[in-house]
Parts: sequence; structure tokens; C-alpha cells
Amino acid sequence: MNTSHPRIAARMADIAPFHVMDILARARQMEAQGRSIIHLEIGEPDFPTPYPIVEAGIAALEQGNLYYSPPLGLPQLRSAIADYYAQHYGVQLSPQRVVVTPGASGALLLALGVLADPGDSVLLADPGYPCNRHFARFIEARTLAVPVDADTGYQLTPELVERYWTPAVKVVLLASPSNPTGTVVPDADVRAIAALCAARGATLIVDEIYHGLIYEGSHHTALAHSDQVFVVNSFSKYFQMTGWRLGWLVAPEWAMEALDRLVQNLYLAASTPAQYAALAAFTPATLTILEARKTELKIRRDYLASALRDLGFDLPDLPQGAFYLYAGCGRFSQDSCAFAAQILEQTGVAITPGVDFGTYQAQRFVRFAYTTSLPNLQEAMRRLREFLPS
Amino acid sequence: MNTSHPRIAARMADIAPFHVMDILARARQMEAQGRSIIHLEIGEPDFPTPYPIVEAGIAALEQGNLYYSPPLGLPQLRSAIADYYAQHYGVQLSPQRVVVTPGASGALLLALGVLADPGDSVLLADPGYPCNRHFARFIEARTLAVPVDADTGYQLTPELVERYWTPAVKVVLLASPSNPTGTVVPDADVRAIAALCAARGATLIVDEIYHGLIYEGSHHTALAHSDQVFVVNSFSKYFQMTGWRLGWLVAPEWAMEALDRLVQNLYLAASTPAQYAALAAFTPATLTILEARKTELKIRRDYLASALRDLGFDLPDLPQGAFYLYAGCGRFSQDSCAFAAQILEQTGVAITPGVDFGTYQAQRFVRFAYTTSLPNLQEAMRRLREFLPS
Repeated sequence: MNTSHPRIAARMADIAPFHVMDILARARQMEAQGRSIIHLEIGEPDFPTPYPIVEAGIAALEQGNLYYSPPLGLPQLRSAIADYYAQHYGVQLSPQRVVVTPGASGALLLALGVLADPGDSVLLADPGYPCNRHFARFIEARTLAVPVDADTGYQLTPELVERYWTPAVKVVLLASPSNPTGTVVPDADVRAIAALCAARGATLIVDEIYHGLIYEGSHHTALAHSDQVFVVNSFSKYFQMTGWRLGWLVAPEWAMEALDRLVQNLYLAASTPAQYAALAAFTPATLTILEARKTELKIRRDYLASALRDLGFDLPDLPQGAFYLYAGCGRFSQDSCAFAAQILEQTGVAITPGVDFGTYQAQRFVRFAYTTSLPNLQEAMRRLREFLPS
Repeated sequence: MNTSHPRIAARMADIAPFHVMDILARARQMEAQGRSIIHLEIGEPDFPTPYPIVEAGIAALEQGNLYYSPPLGLPQLRSAIADYYAQHYGVQLSPQRVVVTPGASGALLLALGVLADPGDSVLLADPGYPCNRHFARFIEARTLAVPVDADTGYQLTPELVERYWTPAVKVVLLASPSNPTGTVVPDADVRAIAALCAARGATLIVDEIYHGLIYEGSHHTALAHSDQVFVVNSFSKYFQMTGWRLGWLVAPEWAMEALDRLVQNLYLAASTPAQYAALAAFTPATLTILEARKTELKIRRDYLASALRDLGFDLPDLPQGAFYLYAGCGRFSQDSCAFAAQILEQTGVAITPGVDFGTYQAQRFVRFAYTTSLPNLQEAMRRLREFLPS
């Protein structure tokens, strides 16, 4: 048996695993041993897919038309997504600008694939969603990670974009609300950054996959500010269809032909059953369920933020969206990985170390996902109160 | 309104659309105008997903556990796939070497992603599945396309691999049976090419997505010859789950950790409902249906090959698998695109020009897919007989 093997591609040295996967694996192991685990590490709502969506999925399976969909998606779903922008945001959008994708992951890969060449830079915030820099690395583009902190709501600002700009920047990537911080980019900043990109021949991508989960204030989609931005969204988070793997991308007219070609080659089309199910995502029955769940998430956020502050975590501002709190743990530890591991071992509470989201101050932050019930959150806080120094 | 726009990435200049999409679009347009179209252009069986798979999908939706699956797939599906190799091929395989993917597309992108760096060459046959060269281009690797013809069954041979080898070759890609030719690589050649790759520090990927559809002879999976090959397979073709978008990859032990990381970042996990449905793909009830359909496909192949030869198409050998005939049309035209377009306009029969599959002799070949019923095939041949010079 030959134990040597061919070289693994160089890019794989830069594509990090999620540390949370180790936390999750250890948590599952402890559960199997009978330990009670409270999962605050998982970026997935605990709510099941709303029943009207499931029923639409069942009807599609019973009907049996489960062949490939057109590459850019079922026409009726592309229209439903365009209608959602009209009804929800007052933004008129041609369905021809919508691509239905295998999750927001598919949308991010497509967007970067048509925009960034090897050596081009993608400007984004650190901390941020870890896959973004890995998508860029996958296609041999570079990431220009801008350190951000609570002073700018953990988001890029027009000033930061200008300050860090280099001629290699071809893409600026915002996430609003952001994972892991839950913070929202103000409308004026989105507008200014979009204008800045346009003036310099770069393109703005805005990840709005948590946009349906903004708990206060009125916020526009980036599409309201410019028809030149790429907007990524998902049926996973607000619509709670995680396992179905369905998202979408809205792009400028000039990119659609290239996107169509790239879809045909990269994945042919998104899942047909998931697309039929998602047609029920925008119905009043589903939206009523989703808005009730959003209210529940807000209650969880408010409780958890207050409890974490009481425990001594650093959380100056209440983030407006998503289902995460990115809390400073500097009072307890300067090693977020060890801290998360220790908390898991000692209390059975699973959280995500900041190092999953970048490098800037990452050892002094941890992410709490309020994707579990209020009683579970309360029990988690009780355990942390016993464990942490007061 | 600003009509200039940022540059589209250079790679997109090399990622061609499928010409068949134009044929398909025109065919749909003609259908909308009331013309009778016979679709021999589509690489998708006309059979619906077998009912036990659909029923398993419905049961999963009713049960409601539709959260993200583990990145490498549901453990029970990875085990079922490993069991399939044991039962069907007599090959023992650890489920730990199986990755469940969003279609074979996902598997091919993953495999090339962990194996090929920019500048590395991927050696493959021309004609072949067009996406393969585009996957390579997407990640900035190069394609070394070897012209093949009927003399080698349109497949690479160990001699051709040696002759075209360069130090840049890091991956050799076989497809057996091949799209568009339906031809199978002999076991001895797979074994020899695998050994050649191993000796030179390269890796063999074998696309076996049509392997369930081999109509005569006994053929091993490449996994029977080496535990160092990457094997790509799919639930789309033999299992007839096209629209569900589910496939798999079997890889050597040494690649699994990198594959896991890449999955986490590129697409998180494959569709959960599709995975639960696919658990029914290997049951006796499903396999009975699939074997009956395979018999039907063989009857279609035999009829179509004979009819095409009678019409004057060049088809020296009967291909053993898939559902395609790659037929020389040199007697009628030296421009397969114009020929396919003309046939569509004049007869309503839609076929795929050879140019979709490469450049070598591509203007003198067209692909016929026998993915429609025998009566439809007979009607198509009747129309061609009227149209073509005898």
C-alpha cells in the first residue's frame, strides 16, 4: 500500500475549517454520553420550515414534475422574488435580473466568479462570514480584510472603503445584517459605497440573507440605491428553509448573460422540488408565521443581550438583525477558542469562537446564536452565571 | 443612466454557453407556435423519478426534519452508497470516503478544487462533457484536451495519456460511459491509466454518472482497480432524480479532510430532502423499476443506431452505455451547428451539435439523446428520412 499521495492544491492551505465544527462535534459526543447540551453555536433557526412551504413541496412531489429547471430558475419563482421586492421594499425589479441559486453559497460563488480575476482584491469586513474569503481564494482572487469594531457597528463605512482602497479592488462585499455581529449598514452608507464602487469601476455585492430579520427601523435593500449592485439573499434564514439549499442573486442586466453561462456550467440549475416549495414562501400564510417567529427572535435577542451584559460580556450596542450576538469575552479570556471549549466542557453550552470570523480581535470575541428557545437561553445563562467569575 | 459597467472576469471569456440551449430555446418557441417538436437534444431521461424515491421524499417532508445535513452528507446515505458498491460491484468501501454532493457538478468542482492549482493541467478527451473544461477554467487550471475518435472508442487510452503527458498534468479525467459518445473505457485501460497517474504523482478522476446505464458486458467501477482514484457519480441519470440535484464523490482517505473543508465553505451541505429521498434509491422496489427502464433504453438505442445508419449517419460501433449516440453527419454537412439548426427548423427534431463537446471534428458530429419514447424516435426518423438526401 502506497502511503504517499499526490499534492493537494495550494489553495486548500488557505481554506480554513470552521472551528465551530469541532465545537459541534464535541457537543454531539457529549450528548451521546448523556450530557445536556445547549446549542448556541448553530447559525440555523430552530423553527421548522413553515407548513405552507412544506405542503407546497409535498404537492410538487405528488405532481411529479421533478426534471431540471431552467438554469436561472423557474420563471414563476423568479417572478415571485421580483414581486417580493416590489411589495416588501417598493423596488421595481425585472424577474430577468433574478437567479435562483443552490443556497446563498451558490449566489456568492457565482457573483465572485463573474467579477473577480486572479490577483483582484475583494474588500470586506473582518469580522465577517468566513466563507467569503474562501470563495475568493477558491477562484484565486485576494481578500482585503478591513478590521472593524464597535465604533462603526462592525461594518465598512465609505471612509474605511476609501482608506483601504487599492487599484486591485474589483469587488466590495457588505453583509447587512452581518454574521457574526447582527449589525446593519445604514442606508446612506450603502448608497455612498455603491457610488464609490461605480466611480472606480468596481462592483458592490451586498449579502442580505438576514435582511428579513431586522427587528427595528426601516431599512432598504441595496437594490433601492443602485441597479448596479449584486444582492445575495436566501430562503434559509428568514424563510427557514435551511436544508433545502435555496437562495437567490439579483444582478445588473449586464451580468446576466455571463451568469447564465456560469450557472449552466457550475451546477446546471437549483433544486426543482425546493423551487416549487419556495413558491409558497411569499404567501400571506407563510409570512404571518415568519413574522411571528421574528417577534420571538427579537424577544430572545433582547433577553440574551441583557443577560450577557449582566455576566460581564462586552456588548455596547444592541445589533438590529440576524440571530447572533458578537460579544467581547476579554474580561474572561484572551483565547476565544480555549474559552469556547472550556465553556462547553464545564457547562454544556456550545458557542462559536471569534476566530471563525476573521483575525481582528478574534481571540477576544465569541458568537452566541439565539437559535434556541427562551427557556434554553435562560438555562444557558444560569449555567454561565455559575461558571464565570462574577 | 450609466451604460458602462465594470469588467467581467477574464475567465468568463473562456466559459462557453451550451449551444444546445439555443436549440432548446428555439424548440420551445416553435412549440409555443404550435409546431410538433421531438426532443432528442436533452440529456435527461423522460422517466419520472421512481415512485419509491418520491414517496421517501414526501415522508421526509411530512416528518419535517429539514435542517442542514452534515457537510459530507447524511451518515445513513453515505452508508447506503458504500453498500451499493459492495452489492453491485463487490467493492468494499468505507462510508467515510463518500461525499454526498449537489449533483455530479458539485462533485467535479470539489474534486478539481482539491487537486488542481492554477497552471496545472487536466488531461481529458475531446469530445467530452463540456463543463469539465469549464470547471478547470473556473479555478484557473488548464485543460489538455486529447483528440479522440472511433479508433479508441472516443476514449483516452494508456498510450494516449503517455503521449500527451506533460509535467503540468496533475489530473486525468475519464468519463465512462462518456457523454456524448456513450462509450465505455475497458477495465484494463482504467487500471493502466490509474497506475500511470500514481507513478507520476497525478490523480485519476473517473466520471461514472452513466455507469448504471451500461447495456452489455460486465464493467467494474474504477474503485475496483484503485483506492487512489476519485469517482464521481450521480442520482440524476440511472436513478432519474435529475431535478433533485444530488450526486456523490468517492475519494481516497488522504483527500477527505480537505474535501470536508471545501464542502463547508463552498455549499455547506447537499439538499436534505433530496438525501432522504435518495435513501430509497437503492431499495429492491426502486432497482426493479430502474432495471426495467434500462431495458427500455437499450431497445431505444438499438432502434436509433440502426435507423441513423440507414439514414447515412456515420456510427461504426454501437456504444455500450449512457443514452446518447454521437453520430457523424459529414455526409450531410461540415457545420454541425447549422445542420442541427436546419434540422430543427425543417423537421422539428431537436439534436445537439458536436461543437458543444469540444473542437476535434466537432463540426462533423451531432449527438442524439434517446431520452424520449420509441414512437417518438420512430417519428423523428421518419421526418429525417423525408428531409435528408438519400
